[in-house]
Amino acid sequence: MSQTTLPKSDELKGKSIIISGGGIGGAAGALALSLRGADVTLYERAPEFKEVGAGLQIGPHGVRMLEKWGLKDKVIDAGYLPERMQFRDAITAEPILTMDFGEEFQRHYGGRYLVIHRSDLLSILVEAATEAGATLLNGVQVLGADDREDGVVVHIEHRADGTREDVGADLLIGFDGTHSVFRKLLVDDEPVPSAYVAYRGTSELPEDPDMKDLKDVVGYIGPRCHFIQYPLRGGELLNQVAVFQSPRYLEALTEGTEVPEDWGNNEEFKNAFGHTNEFIQGRLGDMWLNTWWQMADREPLMNYVVSDHIIVLGDAAHPPLQYLASGAVMAMEDAECLALFASQAAVEGGKNWRDVLEEVSAERAPRCARIQTVGRFWGELWHVDGLSRLIRNETFRQAEATGWFKYADWLWDYDADRREYLKDPSKGEMPAELKEWEYNLHKIARLRDSREYEQVTV
Amino acid sequence: MSQTTLPKSDELKGKSIIISGGGIGGAAGALALSLRGADVTLYERAPEFKEVGAGLQIGPHGVRMLEKWGLKDKVIDAGYLPERMQFRDAITAEPILTMDFGEEFQRHYGGRYLVIHRSDLLSILVEAATEAGATLLNGVQVLGADDREDGVVVHIEHRADGTREDVGADLLIGFDGTHSVFRKLLVDDEPVPSAYVAYRGTSELPEDPDMKDLKDVVGYIGPRCHFIQYPLRGGELLNQVAVFQSPRYLEALTEGTEVPEDWGNNEEFKNAFGHTNEFIQGRLGDMWLNTWWQMADREPLMNYVVSDHIIVLGDAAHPPLQYLASGAVMAMEDAECLALFASQAAVEGGKNWRDVLEEVSAERAPRCARIQTVGRFWGELWHVDGLSRLIRNETFRQAEATGWFKYADWLWDYDADRREYLKDPSKGEMPAELKEWEYNLHKIARLRDSREYEQVTV
Repeated sequence: MSQTTLPKSDELKGKSIIISGGGIGGAAGALALSLRGADVTLYERAPEFKEVGAGLQIGPHGVRMLEKWGLKDKVIDAGYLPERMQFRDAITAEPILTMDFGEEFQRHYGGRYLVIHRSDLLSILVEAATEAGATLLNGVQVLGADDREDGVVVHIEHRADGTREDVGADLLIGFDGTHSVFRKLLVDDEPVPSAYVAYRGTSELPEDPDMKDLKDVVGYIGPRCHFIQYPLRGGELLNQVAVFQSPRYLEALTEGTEVPEDWGNNEEFKNAFGHTNEFIQGRLGDMWLNTWWQMADREPLMNYVVSDHIIVLGDAAHPPLQYLASGAVMAMEDAECLALFASQAAVEGGKNWRDVLEEVSAERAPRCARIQTVGRFWGELWHVDGLSRLIRNETFRQAEATGWFKYADWLWDYDADRREYLKDPSKGEMPAELKEWEYNLHKIARLRDSREYEQVTV
Repeated sequence: MSQTTLPKSDELKGKSIIISGGGIGGAAGALALSLRGADVTLYERAPEFKEVGAGLQIGPHGVRMLEKWGLKDKVIDAGYLPERMQFRDAITAEPILTMDFGEEFQRHYGGRYLVIHRSDLLSILVEAATEAGATLLNGVQVLGADDREDGVVVHIEHRADGTREDVGADLLIGFDGTHSVFRKLLVDDEPVPSAYVAYRGTSELPEDPDMKDLKDVVGYIGPRCHFIQYPLRGGELLNQVAVFQSPRYLEALTEGTEVPEDWGNNEEFKNAFGHTNEFIQGRLGDMWLNTWWQMADREPLMNYVVSDHIIVLGDAAHPPLQYLASGAVMAMEDAECLALFASQAAVEGGKNWRDVLEEVSAERAPRCARIQTVGRFWGELWHVDGLSRLIRNETFRQAEATGWFKYADWLWDYDADRREYLKDPSKGEMPAELKEWEYNLHKIARLRDSREYEQVTV
């Protein structure tokens, strides 16, 4: 393990901050704020710090922050630096767009592209936050909070014995995930299932004769499904994800009938990849069958400030679909943005917590809304069929030929310190060429609700 | 009018050739063969040489031939040289691909891009063929022909008085259009309606305040419709074409019910452009309402040789959809190819007419099959909706950025003298990236016939 020295400063010295939720966002928040000298306590209701799932992709927008927090070597040691991202057509298996993560990429984005096991990233963040002075407690559930003139009173429950307690702090951050109790104070909404379900699996990479040379993130994209592969843990582990559209979910949505709870079950999985390349079909035996992830996001929220001393961040504020591989990075960006804006306010003076939270929300909400919306679009683009698929493939080939940075800069070239969304919230909107695009799940719901049906199109 | 000197030679001196059909292909055939010294008689059943329709686009592959035949100045005088071809989105009216026909284009393709009234082009070809020594007769219908060991006996009827006559010749060319009597000897097929119908109209350009600056071919392409504008006759005339998908035709096809004879009628026309930009909607009043063109092609035919001394060419052999604006040029290419190969065979010796016809067919059939098939594809690409439209627009923008020649070279950079399709018939196939594409009209028929229905896709 590399040794790292955490870059400590003390702008937030004397500020007490409570974080609800010990996932990647909460741990990143505890780290970023502790590094600025804040007195951070994090409560996680689960008995240990643990992430569900397997591999996680971190674009240069995330790797630059990990570097800023002094963790670059640690995450590289624990993870894997893929050489390239290859998009391939899931039917023909042909490469349609290869994004090289070599020198030019690193110069352009000022950072590497990293993949890492979710648990490994969480462990590193938890350890670093602790080392930075934060207190991270398991088995404690945050039930709610009352905002007061001079701060916040947080109601917690120790899950081991059921005892309850009130804890005071200057600020409460709800990093409490997609089913956040604090989000409910802002909006009464529900997750929006995408009709897609993910099966995952990890296996030993060196012992796998077909995969032992894998050095890239490879994504096979095809009609109504996709399949992702990449190495983890220095190449010791193979991470694979098989994602498909559930016909049963879709039928229930279209017909307005009850959605079966187990949509995307093993029977659907068995029938979902019959039209794909035989290489993909041959890999599906590696997937875990006992768990599957019904993928959902929520509608973008344009304000994260719950009250003068409470804000929601991470998945509590902006759960995305997975297509831009930015869910964890968004939470880390939130953490860094809040720590940065609060530190700057502390140095400059004249701003209260509310002002800082409003700034954070004004910077983060447009950006995260765009990531959520483009994520939906990107998913549809991956899964088109027929003529659309052939056009999509040509667009991808052209993007490789002309340079694809122009499509990724908005996502990967970001620094909260530039305050670009705060200065120009329209940066959070879809680009002009995509303004008209309507999410298919919205369209289906609209057509069903209005009982309008579209003209048959050939 | 410019004076031109026709480039005469005499390789085919003494060869008697009968052409059935006095459209653009037949007239071009009479010209090309007469220029090589053949003794050509053309029979046209109509009482005068006349083309239905209005404007016609001639790419550089056609203009180079007109130049070779000594007609470049004449067609330029009669027609119009657009500066550019602009593709615009029919909903937003925004330009998505502009193809400049300036110096770089002319250098690359060795020719101009021309638009001309169909009647004007036909008149020029008829006049030139006559000047070159061909006999072009109206009011004579070719009923059929018998192949003999030393040539062909052609059965004709003088339509004025109904008298019939047999005429002998070395060769008969069926340039007798899409309802050709000679094609029937090769294949028992029917036209394949595209479900699209065209309305046309010409009007005075200089008096049209919104259009007087038009110097380009402008094509607005959109869901289920498109709209084309360009000047004709030196900018005196405005040519407009409004094309849309007929819901009634489509319904009959999908349901397997009887197709209404008047599909694409005025009532359908009135409802077809409601989703397009208001500029387009404001132009539709210029369209003629008493005639509309139900657009159809036929399946590609891989052999045009009817017998030892009879061949079909032009629309009789390969009627295309209009999307590549190459129907007239294909017929001219056929004419030049036959005249060239026959001349070369006459000079070299050792080949009989059958050999020459087989060579012409082997060169032309793969090329024309590709033009027919890509024409169908191109039409679908113009008319996509939803997400596909946004992807298509991006592909077009990228093609402009990276240079679109690579997409057009196969079509516009052609010379029969290179015999490239004869040497490599696989050049007539769809490029690898489009191999899988299936024409939607085929797909609908297949699904209807098999009573299979596709999984609902979102």
